[in-house]
Amino acid sequence: MKVARFSHADIIAFGIIDDDELVVLKGDPMFAGYDPTGERIGLREVKLLAPVIPRSKVVGMAHSFYANREEQAAGTPREPRFFLKPNTAVVGPGDPIVLPTQSGDVRVEGELAVVIGRITRNVSVEDAEDAIFGYTIANDVTARDLFERDEDLTRAKSFDSFCPLGPVIDTEFDWTGLSLHGRINDEPFQSGNAALLRHTIAEMVSFLSGVFTLLPGDVILTGAPGTSGAVVEGDTVQVEIAGIGVLSNPVRRA
Amino acid sequence: MKVARFSHADIIAFGIIDDDELVVLKGDPMFAGYDPTGERIGLREVKLLAPVIPRSKVVGMAHSFYANREEQAAGTPREPRFFLKPNTAVVGPGDPIVLPTQSGDVRVEGELAVVIGRITRNVSVEDAEDAIFGYTIANDVTARDLFERDEDLTRAKSFDSFCPLGPVIDTEFDWTGLSLHGRINDEPFQSGNAALLRHTIAEMVSFLSGVFTLLPGDVILTGAPGTSGAVVEGDTVQVEIAGIGVLSNPVRRA
Repeated sequence: MKVARFSHADIIAFGIIDDDELVVLKGDPMFAGYDPTGERIGLREVKLLAPVIPRSKVVGMAHSFYANREEQAAGTPREPRFFLKPNTAVVGPGDPIVLPTQSGDVRVEGELAVVIGRITRNVSVEDAEDAIFGYTIANDVTARDLFERDEDLTRAKSFDSFCPLGPVIDTEFDWTGLSLHGRINDEPFQSGNAALLRHTIAEMVSFLSGVFTLLPGDVILTGAPGTSGAVVEGDTVQVEIAGIGVLSNPVRRA
Repeated sequence: MKVARFSHADIIAFGIIDDDELVVLKGDPMFAGYDPTGERIGLREVKLLAPVIPRSKVVGMAHSFYANREEQAAGTPREPRFFLKPNTAVVGPGDPIVLPTQSGDVRVEGELAVVIGRITRNVSVEDAEDAIFGYTIANDVTARDLFERDEDLTRAKSFDSFCPLGPVIDTEFDWTGLSLHGRINDEPFQSGNAALLRHTIAEMVSFLSGVFTLLPGDVILTGAPGTSGAVVEGDTVQVEIAGIGVLSNPVRRA
């Protein structure tokens, strides 16, 4: 099932994708279940919004992928690492990524994002996937030069618009079959799958739930397979995950 | 004016401190203004809660204070630095700080905390204090050993209960007169004032508002004057700021 959040005329609502239409829901399905209003709206008539509003955490996993199979074969086990992005960084499909005046080197990275669906604390790896509502696409935007200057990711990843999410949440996605492709102005810059992941999604969720309580609507960016891309004003970034869709965002100067 | 949030019988509400009573308010004064219900409740009859529920960001300022006057005199200007704590770390007065099983070295630091009252983006230093709703006390708890292992603050500062806030928000506090005292089991471990701050509160707010949109309820921990204190199970930590009150939290094992 694919869940979207959208605006149409003067309403904002959630819906379920049914071919080229949206089955409009009465509330947020994460909290209110799948309760249709009876209305259907054509997908082309709406503006899709970020499919989730994180009320607590946007977590980014760092160094999630081995660089190559040789590193993977030699890899010693290590704990997952993560950073936090503020929820004010979240924008939706089609919304601009705004280049801050403080940076001259902004990078984009397509990532699979996990959307948490229930209150979860200290969950075992075995039970961790029960915490997941679904999967969406994230663009983890970073001001690379500020990361190097600060020697810290926080500011570099925190600017408004630095976390595009969407276009939809797929509640049945199989992450082991991940196939991700990133393009800037239709030129490929990123291509990846799940083969080189250091930790399973369940291991990530379990680990994080041992640090803090995961809440419904929390989003976990699972890390970028392959390389990041540098963007400038006027570019358009597309991140495609087969089975979920394409997350497309133009790039603007502040 | 001192604003508290409290539970009493089966209600949770905001109130204004009036001697040893609370003037109960109809809503959150940050959004609904000061609209009394007409009811008054004795302060001793209620449990005080964290006086703000951050819906977006808890920001911690890093390296906010010079170590001493010599360093201050020699100090070259530098940009403020910050980290993020998840809102799931927030607890209230009297709530336990829970030592995580992952750490054997947990430190506490008393800090003045700024509570943002309005949507604020790219505010000038001159206008920055207009964004402030008030001031409260924070205990910025850190798993020091995890910070050293990760070489990163995020996990070390993110555990549930690692951000006690309270007991009240003082909307008229003058931070230039800051006098902060921290005690563990009545033994002083921390003492400080605003003299060695690298940046004014207005400079911090202005800087942060150039990175992300500050929202009502965002909290900025302004950094710890003086030293941190190590805590173990059974300790009680008190952070006192003259004019605001005392934030007291027991320490428990997970």
